[in-house]
Amino acid sequence: MTDLVTFGETMLRLSPSGHERLETTDSLEFRAAGAESNVAVAAQRLGADATWVSKLPDSPLGRRVTAGLRQHGVETDVVWSEEGRQGTYYLEHGGAPRGTNVIYDRSDAAVTTAEFDELPAETVRDAEVFYTCGITPALSETLEATTKELLATAQQAGTTTAFDVNYRSKLWEPNEARETLEALFPDVDVLVVAARDAREVLARDGDAAEIASSLAEEFDFETVVVTRGEAGALAHHDGEVYEQDAFETETFDPIGTGDAFVGAFLSRRLAGEDVPAALAYGAATAALKRTIPGDVAVVTPEEVERVLDESGGEISR
Amino acid sequence: MTDLVTFGETMLRLSPSGHERLETTDSLEFRAAGAESNVAVAAQRLGADATWVSKLPDSPLGRRVTAGLRQHGVETDVVWSEEGRQGTYYLEHGGAPRGTNVIYDRSDAAVTTAEFDELPAETVRDAEVFYTCGITPALSETLEATTKELLATAQQAGTTTAFDVNYRSKLWEPNEARETLEALFPDVDVLVVAARDAREVLARDGDAAEIASSLAEEFDFETVVVTRGEAGALAHHDGEVYEQDAFETETFDPIGTGDAFVGAFLSRRLAGEDVPAALAYGAATAALKRTIPGDVAVVTPEEVERVLDESGGEISR
Amino acid sequence: MTDLVTFGETMLRLSPSGHERLETTDSLEFRAAGAESNVAVAAQRLGADATWVSKLPDSPLGRRVTAGLRQHGVETDVVWSEEGRQGTYYLEHGGAPRGTNVIYDRSDAAVTTAEFDELPAETVRDAEVFYTCGITPALSETLEATTKELLATAQQAGTTTAFDVNYRSKLWEPNEARETLEALFPDVDVLVVAARDAREVLARDGDAAEIASSLAEEFDFETVVVTRGEAGALAHHDGEVYEQDAFETETFDPIGTGDAFVGAFLSRRLAGEDVPAALAYGAATAALKRTIPGDVAVVTPEEVERVLDESGGEISR
Amino acid sequence: MTDLVTFGETMLRLSPSGHERLETTDSLEFRAAGAESNVAVAAQRLGADATWVSKLPDSPLGRRVTAGLRQHGVETDVVWSEEGRQGTYYLEHGGAPRGTNVIYDRSDAAVTTAEFDELPAETVRDAEVFYTCGITPALSETLEATTKELLATAQQAGTTTAFDVNYRSKLWEPNEARETLEALFPDVDVLVVAARDAREVLARDGDAAEIASSLAEEFDFETVVVTRGEAGALAHHDGEVYEQDAFETETFDPIGTGDAFVGAFLSRRLAGEDVPAALAYGAATAALKRTIPGDVAVVTPEEVERVLDESGGEISR
Amino acid sequence: MTDLVTFGETMLRLSPSGHERLETTDSLEFRAAGAESNVAVAAQRLGADATWVSKLPDSPLGRRVTAGLRQHGVETDVVWSEEGRQGTYYLEHGGAPRGTNVIYDRSDAAVTTAEFDELPAETVRDAEVFYTCGITPALSETLEATTKELLATAQQAGTTTAFDVNYRSKLWEPNEARETLEALFPDVDVLVVAARDAREVLARDGDAAEIASSLAEEFDFETVVVTRGEAGALAHHDGEVYEQDAFETETFDPIGTGDAFVGAFLSRRLAGEDVPAALAYGAATAALKRTIPGDVAVVTPEEVERVLDESGGEISR
Amino acid sequence: MTDLVTFGETMLRLSPSGHERLETTDSLEFRAAGAESNVAVAAQRLGADATWVSKLPDSPLGRRVTAGLRQHGVETDVVWSEEGRQGTYYLEHGGAPRGTNVIYDRSDAAVTTAEFDELPAETVRDAEVFYTCGITPALSETLEATTKELLATAQQAGTTTAFDVNYRSKLWEPNEARETLEALFPDVDVLVVAARDAREVLARDGDAAEIASSLAEEFDFETVVVTRGEAGALAHHDGEVYEQDAFETETFDPIGTGDAFVGAFLSRRLAGEDVPAALAYGAATAALKRTIPGDVAVVTPEEVERVLDESGGEISR
Repeated sequence: MTDLVTFGETMLRLSPSGHERLETTDSLEFRAAGAESNVAVAAQRLGADATWVSKLPDSPLGRRVTAGLRQHGVETDVVWSEEGRQGTYYLEHGGAPRGTNVIYDRSDAAVTTAEFDELPAETVRDAEVFYTCGITPALSETLEATTKELLATAQQAGTTTAFDVNYRSKLWEPNEARETLEALFPDVDVLVVAARDAREVLARDGDAAEIASSLAEEFDFETVVVTRGEAGALAHHDGEVYEQDAFETETFDPIGTGDAFVGAFLSRRLAGEDVPAALAYGAATAALKRTIPGDVAVVTPEEVERVLDESGGEISR
Repeated sequence: MTDLVTFGETMLRLSPSGHERLETTDSLEFRAAGAESNVAVAAQRLGADATWVSKLPDSPLGRRVTAGLRQHGVETDVVWSEEGRQGTYYLEHGGAPRGTNVIYDRSDAAVTTAEFDELPAETVRDAEVFYTCGITPALSETLEATTKELLATAQQAGTTTAFDVNYRSKLWEPNEARETLEALFPDVDVLVVAARDAREVLARDGDAAEIASSLAEEFDFETVVVTRGEAGALAHHDGEVYEQDAFETETFDPIGTGDAFVGAFLSRRLAGEDVPAALAYGAATAALKRTIPGDVAVVTPEEVERVLDESGGEISR
Repeated sequence: MTDLVTFGETMLRLSPSGHERLETTDSLEFRAAGAESNVAVAAQRLGADATWVSKLPDSPLGRRVTAGLRQHGVETDVVWSEEGRQGTYYLEHGGAPRGTNVIYDRSDAAVTTAEFDELPAETVRDAEVFYTCGITPALSETLEATTKELLATAQQAGTTTAFDVNYRSKLWEPNEARETLEALFPDVDVLVVAARDAREVLARDGDAAEIASSLAEEFDFETVVVTRGEAGALAHHDGEVYEQDAFETETFDPIGTGDAFVGAFLSRRLAGEDVPAALAYGAATAALKRTIPGDVAVVTPEEVERVLDESGGEISR
Repeated sequence: MTDLVTFGETMLRLSPSGHERLETTDSLEFRAAGAESNVAVAAQRLGADATWVSKLPDSPLGRRVTAGLRQHGVETDVVWSEEGRQGTYYLEHGGAPRGTNVIYDRSDAAVTTAEFDELPAETVRDAEVFYTCGITPALSETLEATTKELLATAQQAGTTTAFDVNYRSKLWEPNEARETLEALFPDVDVLVVAARDAREVLARDGDAAEIASSLAEEFDFETVVVTRGEAGALAHHDGEVYEQDAFETETFDPIGTGDAFVGAFLSRRLAGEDVPAALAYGAATAALKRTIPGDVAVVTPEEVERVLDESGGEISR
Repeated sequence: MTDLVTFGETMLRLSPSGHERLETTDSLEFRAAGAESNVAVAAQRLGADATWVSKLPDSPLGRRVTAGLRQHGVETDVVWSEEGRQGTYYLEHGGAPRGTNVIYDRSDAAVTTAEFDELPAETVRDAEVFYTCGITPALSETLEATTKELLATAQQAGTTTAFDVNYRSKLWEPNEARETLEALFPDVDVLVVAARDAREVLARDGDAAEIASSLAEEFDFETVVVTRGEAGALAHHDGEVYEQDAFETETFDPIGTGDAFVGAFLSRRLAGEDVPAALAYGAATAALKRTIPGDVAVVTPEEVERVLDESGGEISR
Repeated sequence: MTDLVTFGETMLRLSPSGHERLETTDSLEFRAAGAESNVAVAAQRLGADATWVSKLPDSPLGRRVTAGLRQHGVETDVVWSEEGRQGTYYLEHGGAPRGTNVIYDRSDAAVTTAEFDELPAETVRDAEVFYTCGITPALSETLEATTKELLATAQQAGTTTAFDVNYRSKLWEPNEARETLEALFPDVDVLVVAARDAREVLARDGDAAEIASSLAEEFDFETVVVTRGEAGALAHHDGEVYEQDAFETETFDPIGTGDAFVGAFLSRRLAGEDVPAALAYGAATAALKRTIPGDVAVVTPEEVERVLDESGGEISR
């Protein structure tokens, strides 16, 4: 039995080195990157047994994706397709005031045609936790239906369902997103949402604690985690609210911070730890992630624990 | 007035360095690449005044394409589009017996929606030569119609029309290609075709000279050039047949050899030279191209002339 | 008709990657770089129609320069020379307290022999704005005379002349510079000067506003822009003084900041905007430049406007 | 149940890029590399279900090894050790007459302490085929005993045991090797040996067929495969001798050719194919391997089949 | 006669570029690195005549070490050994909170067998200063004895002996270190110790001045320098205490900062300058070192003086 | 006393990687390169004690040169100059028919002002052999005089003088070269000349043996070595003629082949070996050099001996 199953799109990320620009670069760094696989990798590296489920083109590009995940120990359960593209995205690291710029080139990816019936439902049912995020139903109508069915199937089988809102303004409008997501929420046990998304997409008011409470109440979530970037995170669980500060960090690559947080949080919950401990683990992992190039939190439990012990940052020799 | 106008898709080419594989590489070389822009660059570098016409997404990726062409002196006359992708292709240099492998990721490129009415017809009419190739009509029905209209418009305006069959088996079937191409041929003055394509797509028999003659006769081409790889090329022009051997070369990147040949051939014809001289110039440029990484013939007239003088290949110091 | 014509030397810049040292590096980054072409590129990218005029050796190195400029859309109007070197400079990015170190290797560059009569005077006369800077007359006596004649010719033809003092202590002494520059000032309409250069080279006293006023008065400049690094810039125009703060920025490459400012300022003036709007545009572009490796401001109008709207610096996805 | 289990040391390979020398290079390529894992990867990629068993230091270096294998789909069943080094080797690609030079730095690797009792014997017993090679018993006395016990255990459980002599003169003397290896042979079903090793280490005379016959007879091997580099390979099986030519290839990295051959051979035998078919598959995979940088045959079944169909080596587009 | 002779291990340092991780990188930067050679290089570059004495394997790896030192002008007096490894270390630059991580792979290095009798004692006796550090006796019992004998020999010959405690927790325990080091101290004239090591290893109390005084008193050192990282350094010499602030710096590579300090300090003492001047020189060199990738202070006297003059950090052009 | 002293210019070589072109590359490889230092490095690496004498700018670029030589063990005895450039050359590796292209940028190098009086004449007088080549007097009139005086001084002191004609058509005309060189020949003991240069510059007729004899006779050389590329070399010494075939080699970088030959030849002569042995050693070293990127023969005596033993070219492991 697998601890954690995640489902979603993983792209190939193409980025100039350093702070170079796409218009003038002659080479690109090449990595696998996707919210749900990022979560699977973080959880696997931190002790869980994780499987990533998806659909990929049967090509070197599709295999590049599984190679990029399997190297971290994650299992990949993939429908190999003769049709559909391999999604990519281009990334520029700009620094202020230029900003980090993402150009998606993910239309017509093979995964956008993934139907429930071709996916390994049994694997999902057997998992302890099933995770996907708000990017997946935004990618196609087929995926919207598949996501709904997977969440429902999981929940009915007793698998805990976890879901990160992960709103992407380059994929859909807030209203459209809200409607779709709220239709999924009844099948979700653990909700993760950035405070900003809660306000702008889910139309919540108030501070993070109020957002968490109102969401928990309205949709009967077991746990609601509200993330606030440098201001840390907060969880509403069993009627209690737990706060967690963010750890200070140097940021070399911010992409994937939220996924690192979620993967680490879930790994601790799967290991039987309580919500405050899982929040702290998530925050420490997120801080480490920001120092690591690529979408993925290439960390170890020992490193996370060093951050929690506040002894990180020196030369270890 | 421009000497040469070309129209077609230019992609961004993504290739591992050396002989690495896509599945395992962590970085990719990044270059602009497309048959018609390759021809424009070769012709421009060898003395013609060339303009490349196309449609591109209004994005850093689209601008990466124009940057890659303009650096060689080519003018770019581009319709910037809010819709449509930037086409790419992935390339592995395999060596024998692995071979050179191309993976197209060019579906739904912005150029596939390019309609005649949005393109600069006046620029085409004012050119001495208009060039496009068989890849373009294969990309979409819209482009098939646009190609037809551009060729017809050019020919009616007295612009010489040049066309390379450039059959790509990953884009369409031979039968489909033949039907489309033969519908274009009445608007073509100068045809370039690989002997293999003439046989497998255009259903011609016989040796290269017979192929050239039969095509010239059936479609009333002014000039037919038949290319035969290492066996050289042959032209049928004004009832005469001219043969040209290939030059010996070390091959570091074979992609774009045919385009280098055509661009050089056209540059000489535009400069008023006769067909045999243009063939020789094309063959020498093609040989140089094979030593140059990327799709594009980064050559100078002096270098081409050194090959024709057979003094190339030594250390010049 | 061209909006902006600039004249000056463009070098090839050779720099170790990251913070490596010249003494120990095994590879160098290779880019085109020069004050007047930096201005042309920034202006072109921000909407102007710019041409760079110069003299280059007829060699791959000279062509490397035009390739580096043309890729941004700038036209290049170059006298190709059989004599003279291609100037280069070596650059180390040191960080504090090591500093950024520049080693010029530009003696006997082809451009140092550029005489007025071989340059395209008509292009200069037809331009809206002609720009050069204080580096150019410092390079040779010939260039001192040529600069003088170009500025005079432009001004007489009704072309607005813009000039940046750009004092370089590795090229000449303050006294020598002052004498030469003040002889050029009667032919200059728009002067740009760093406050420090105004004090140390032009022997001005007082704060930036006083410097601007005294220069405007003495030399009858239409506009004087005084730049003060992180303290922003200030313009004296038509008897009014306008102040502009600098935008906060992370600095990955400070070289070319001033040129980005000037190019953006001129692009807005050419577009008919008033001096305060042009100053703001210049400051925003300068801030962006500091995040971009190389001498050149690889920016878009949209990016500049995002900085002006203060929404830069986040992840856009 | 796993098809193939292999056991042995995997090192990290450090090599200058291109033909640079260790003494003067400033960077090294970094890859996982080891005979038994090379075999596992080749077999896995060609359709088998392969597991690599070993002992590694519990460090980023040890995890670098498993990452490098798991990315190809191989399972890794590793004893993580607090003691012992991660073996490495340095490689220079020299070309003739310089040659390819290997410097081992593998003393005191964690794997040299691997005892039978800490390894997953059940996994070995459950496999269809168990493979190791002559490098493993050369590494330590402990490994000599462990190898013996693993082979015996496998054979007793009905698992086919395969063994490649793989003599390495930098590890031991021919006499020492012969004694050790011949003590293992009774537990081996399928022997692979280079003709040169058969002569110089196993003291065999005659041509390849005679070598194969005499070995099969003396040690009662089910199958003996004798490899002869560019002269192809030959198998003695069930009293029959089968010959297989080598395929022509360009060699960009010869390391791992033999392992690719064995992995492919075993994958076909596991798939139920006969010895001649497996030999051909092995030879084609070996030819492909030589075009691929790194120790590992990053190939697909389709590519191997293209070589067998003799259609490789062209541009596929 | 040589000014400065140093003795110790120099390793080859293997580090991913930028902030990449060992587990996922495909290439490593490759440099020579060791405390005593770092000191020799800094001193040599700043005007001393320095020789580094050690034992290395007779291999490309050993020669890579001498190449890395000799390029800075240092003489190398090396015992070439057929036995023993070339020590290496792996380095990850993590940033906070990940930290900089060092993995030593230096066991059984050739130098660990270096006996006094095979080393050039005469060179040591003839030097003005002999330097080694606390890493050396930690590497093997042989080296502990050799270090003792070299220090004693030097001191008896009138050579000033300098020693940096340089405690490395990955090599030995504090108690073990203290015992060994205190046995060496009678032969030491100039001691350098980090305040933290003085407290944790040498069991000193009090502030830096008290530490210095108590050590000077107990072991009769001529000079004691206590370093305190960003808090600067302090020297106790001839009964006087001199304080030196650290210079502000951007840190691109902190490794080797202490060695740069010591090398610069000794170079000034050798040049006849007093302790405060040497401390200032050391602090300025240490600040520069932190901006330079690699273990070694690739600096010039002019650069150090610019820092002392507080004019560093700007663009010099 | 030094075995070998060489005098001449060493440049910094800037070359695109692989077969890229200068016009389009974004990075350059950076190495020290010069005929006389190439000879010194080869001789030093093969057992001689070599010193390179020259004049360099006192800059990081000048120090880059000495670093590049000293790393191989060569001593550098340099006049550091405040005036004059560091010479560079740009190199493209083209393959046939493009060829290898060299662009010199060496005018006004500091070395061109090197006068006899500032150079270490005593070092030259004390050497066993003094070597320079025909490039040096071609660089300036000052160097022509200095070369003459150095050769005369050496010869008078009993130092054997060796000289390679090394004609460079980009530096001077054959007639000019002949006149200058023949004025130097009376001071030369050992002459090396390529057969082609002997014919085209020195106006010799006949085969290599006749060339050698006629030169020996006319100028009373002790030894004349005539090199013939792939056809090997021939020496005329003491009335005898010795022939040496070239060794087969793969060529990854042909630059410096002749210098490797000379350095190896001289190292053997210095070691007391006879002319045929030295010729063979030179030929083997030259073959190795062609496999090594850069101007310099990074070889060991063991490698040269392996080539002589004809056992090179295999995998050594």
